[in-house]
Amino acid sequence: MSEKLYDFLEKTVGKDLWTKDLIDLVSYSSDASLNKNRPEAGVWPETAEQVAAILAFCNREKIPVTPRGAGTGLTGLAVPVQGGLVMDLGRMDKILKVSLDDRLAVVQPGVVYAALEEALDPYGFFFPPDPASGKVATLGGNVATNAGGMKGAKYGTTKDYVLGLQVALPDGRLMRTGSNTMKTSSGYNLTQLFVGCEGTLGVVTEITLKINPRPTANSTALATFDKMEQAGRAVTDIMKSGIIPSVLEIIDNATLVAINQNSDMGLPEVGGMLLVETDGYTQGETEYQLEKVIDLFKKNGALEVRKAASDEEAQSLWLARKSSYAVISRISNALLVEDMAVPMSQVAYMLAYLDDLAARHKVRIATVGHAGDGNLHPTICFDGTDEEEVKRVHAASKELFKKVVEVGGTLTGEHGIGMDKAPYMSLEHDQAAMETMRGLKKFFDPNNILNPDKMSV
Amino acid sequence: MSEKLYDFLEKTVGKDLWTKDLIDLVSYSSDASLNKNRPEAGVWPETAEQVAAILAFCNREKIPVTPRGAGTGLTGLAVPVQGGLVMDLGRMDKILKVSLDDRLAVVQPGVVYAALEEALDPYGFFFPPDPASGKVATLGGNVATNAGGMKGAKYGTTKDYVLGLQVALPDGRLMRTGSNTMKTSSGYNLTQLFVGCEGTLGVVTEITLKINPRPTANSTALATFDKMEQAGRAVTDIMKSGIIPSVLEIIDNATLVAINQNSDMGLPEVGGMLLVETDGYTQGETEYQLEKVIDLFKKNGALEVRKAASDEEAQSLWLARKSSYAVISRISNALLVEDMAVPMSQVAYMLAYLDDLAARHKVRIATVGHAGDGNLHPTICFDGTDEEEVKRVHAASKELFKKVVEVGGTLTGEHGIGMDKAPYMSLEHDQAAMETMRGLKKFFDPNNILNPDKMSV
Ligand SMILES: Cc1cc2nc3c(=O)[nH]c(=O)nc-3n(C[C@H](O)[C@H](O)[C@H](O)COP(=O)(O)OP(=O)(O)OC[C@H]3O[C@@H](n4cnc5c(N)ncnc54)[C@H](O)[C@@H]3O)c2cc1C
Ligand SMILES: Cc1cc2nc3c(=O)[nH]c(=O)nc-3n(C[C@H](O)[C@H](O)[C@H](O)COP(=O)(O)OP(=O)(O)OC[C@H]3O[C@@H](n4cnc5c(N)ncnc54)[C@H](O)[C@@H]3O)c2cc1C
Repeated sequence: MSEKLYDFLEKTVGKDLWTKDLIDLVSYSSDASLNKNRPEAGVWPETAEQVAAILAFCNREKIPVTPRGAGTGLTGLAVPVQGGLVMDLGRMDKILKVSLDDRLAVVQPGVVYAALEEALDPYGFFFPPDPASGKVATLGGNVATNAGGMKGAKYGTTKDYVLGLQVALPDGRLMRTGSNTMKTSSGYNLTQLFVGCEGTLGVVTEITLKINPRPTANSTALATFDKMEQAGRAVTDIMKSGIIPSVLEIIDNATLVAINQNSDMGLPEVGGMLLVETDGYTQGETEYQLEKVIDLFKKNGALEVRKAASDEEAQSLWLARKSSYAVISRISNALLVEDMAVPMSQVAYMLAYLDDLAARHKVRIATVGHAGDGNLHPTICFDGTDEEEVKRVHAASKELFKKVVEVGGTLTGEHGIGMDKAPYMSLEHDQAAMETMRGLKKFFDPNNILNPDKMSV
Repeated sequence: MSEKLYDFLEKTVGKDLWTKDLIDLVSYSSDASLNKNRPEAGVWPETAEQVAAILAFCNREKIPVTPRGAGTGLTGLAVPVQGGLVMDLGRMDKILKVSLDDRLAVVQPGVVYAALEEALDPYGFFFPPDPASGKVATLGGNVATNAGGMKGAKYGTTKDYVLGLQVALPDGRLMRTGSNTMKTSSGYNLTQLFVGCEGTLGVVTEITLKINPRPTANSTALATFDKMEQAGRAVTDIMKSGIIPSVLEIIDNATLVAINQNSDMGLPEVGGMLLVETDGYTQGETEYQLEKVIDLFKKNGALEVRKAASDEEAQSLWLARKSSYAVISRISNALLVEDMAVPMSQVAYMLAYLDDLAARHKVRIATVGHAGDGNLHPTICFDGTDEEEVKRVHAASKELFKKVVEVGGTLTGEHGIGMDKAPYMSLEHDQAAMETMRGLKKFFDPNNILNPDKMSV
């Protein structure tokens, strides 16, 4: 089987665009999660037609194909569980068009988030999802996971910006979905089936994204609290106040301590901190919003509220928040990053529950989150070589998933299901929904060649 | 067959909740389009379980079921082309929950748009899609057509607010999709398959909608132009300027004349008019935006620019725009309302093209549109009893569809495909996309009982 695949790749893309070298196969065995498995080959297609031809062949031969962007997935997404071929889209990295007149950009899937940001910046436009991994992760990966970030509360996530796609289907057909227009009610929304599909239904070969004008003014502040729960209550109050901050981030004590150990920011090592940004066209507008938010910080018992005095100070706050994953990763040799989102009313309750969970299971949890849309990232920090501890981590994690669903939340706000959450999907989705998802998988990919064993489909 | 259906309905919902009376069947023969066909029965389910049971029966017996909200569809949507049963969701009209804490509302599908608006207003929240038919149309209909309106450029359309659904599938299973959270990346996006599906994949029995705080300030202005084309160029300039007006509407001469004949507004009967609203929290913010827009009006040769002096004046401008369909309908005994959306760069071109099209085919076209998202509503006004003219209307309409697709547009920005545009769908969607849509229809509704013969699936 492998020989047949190697022959096909050699013939179809030529020797420079595929690999069976051990060093490459090891690289393609893992992503940013703890999962690993080695594929038999890797391929770097340069055109949609090559992608389609490879899929058609693998579909005939029933060879698993795992699409891969930058491999930064946190739940076992681009890991080739069944071996086969890893299809690295990284060489399809051209920004094909930026049209301000049409308010859109057309990109290949391998374009890195930051490259698009850079291309749009001179025009005063941006693509808002802003994942913390944006300097590395690809837009194809962002689409396939419906990536989000700090601007979510006001600007939404990747799905809100994908106007259309070109997709290669497992049988080798190329298909265009969506429209180049700002709105459409024409036919079924095929686009959104592929957004967040984790590479299980098709390979995205081109993306048309709506772009947004970058706000010309903003104001930033931080507030400290004794307890995370108080910060959580402030969050609910803010989000129902009529103000929608452009950023509203929460950081717990463990993370604040870790940030201080790795920077000279000297953040107050309190129970919990909220960072807020408001934006608009005018300073009056952003200050008006910020004052309302600050009132609600105070109402919920903030210890201290501090406005950023300068743009530089604001920037360093955002940088500190963005670095939180990196700095937490120094706490221990293993991490399990969770990513639930809960209804806005449940934020405070979940934060209190997390404290309790950590105590009961004797695990260490550091929590940050995109609080403005109820998306919390409790990270369990543990010693991966301590079997007993690993067991406690899994028990805590399982209990957490149940609780999240119990309060009406979702297992994943932005990282995706992948392998790690696949066993828990039916906690969240009812039987008819699970059957429907599995049916759709079968409809698009009857031979189950595309990123098999992910997402419980 | 009819008798069996009647017996089933009598047994299942009881005599007050179904009908075979001629007067009712005639009411259920048409919607706001020109299409007509009489069903064999109508039913007014009151619960999701009744909806599911009726579908299961009709699926077994292969009886067509056409879901119906308020019947205001403009393209032959709720018309029971194959007879059978019309399922009127109008009795499922309860607002089940408004939760500001969770920033969402849960409604039954028969709730009229305006009823939700009224329920949210006291809290300073709103559900932005705002279709002109909002006093009559239902939220179920809005979801099934992905309805839009004047706030689209800044606030998007229905799809952007549907967090989750309960859906009855043709085989009688009830399914929940989506989440009560502001974001999720958990599983395939089943929700968006039902948004805009025109009742062909399932019957929506419950809707969870994200709600938005209502802006506390706004500014309004109008600008007049010699030619629609100039107005169109101003639109493209505005939308790439960095300003996103909350409303940007275009009105042509024929419509201005019609409005004046039916009101005492005394609008200037120029070649074209743009109405703009900017919004925000503070007056400074809205004025800042308005000034930028006004500069671009002037740059594109506006004859006159007038700011609304008062809230009342602004309100009456919006009312005039919203009444345009009604007043145009007095011009002639038959209307064909088009609803294309084009890429933002093509607005001016399309407006010039429409003049040319009308002249060449000797038809009368009155155009309004949600210019800010490229969504134009040219309405062909004609004498439905004049066979020659009807032929010209259809020829013009067909040419228009081709042109729309040629410039990268979509056949429908918000009204849906229904019967009228079904023959043209494959102009817009490629073969793989059409095959996929048909395959999805078959997957969800293998017996083709749900709103058959719509959308070319
Ligand atoms: C330090 C760090 C910070 C992070 N911060 C965030 C954050 O703030 N927000 C967030 O949402 N995520 C975050 N992530 C997770 C990750 O970066 C995102 O999930 C990202 O979208 C993955 O992109 P990628 O290019 O690395 O994709 P991969 O990890 O390579 O792949 C992800 C999934 O997408 C599929 N895929 C990739 N390309 C295609 C394609 N062209 N067609 C079809 N399927 C495809 C793969 O098969 C896989 O299932 C973070 C990760 C790390 C390590
Ligand atoms: C004067 C006028 C102005 C209009 N202005 C606008 C506008 O500004 N923007 C806009 O978008 N549209 C507009 N429309 C069109 C129309 O009002 C919309 O399409 C509206 O969303 C239809 O709602 P309805 O309740 O009348 O649905 P119906 O017309 O009864 O049905 C529409 C479609 O939805 C399906 N459907 C209805 N309920 C359900 C359900 N519960 N589950 C599954 N399928 C269902 C039906 O089968 C049908 O295919 C206008 C129409 C008129 C007559």
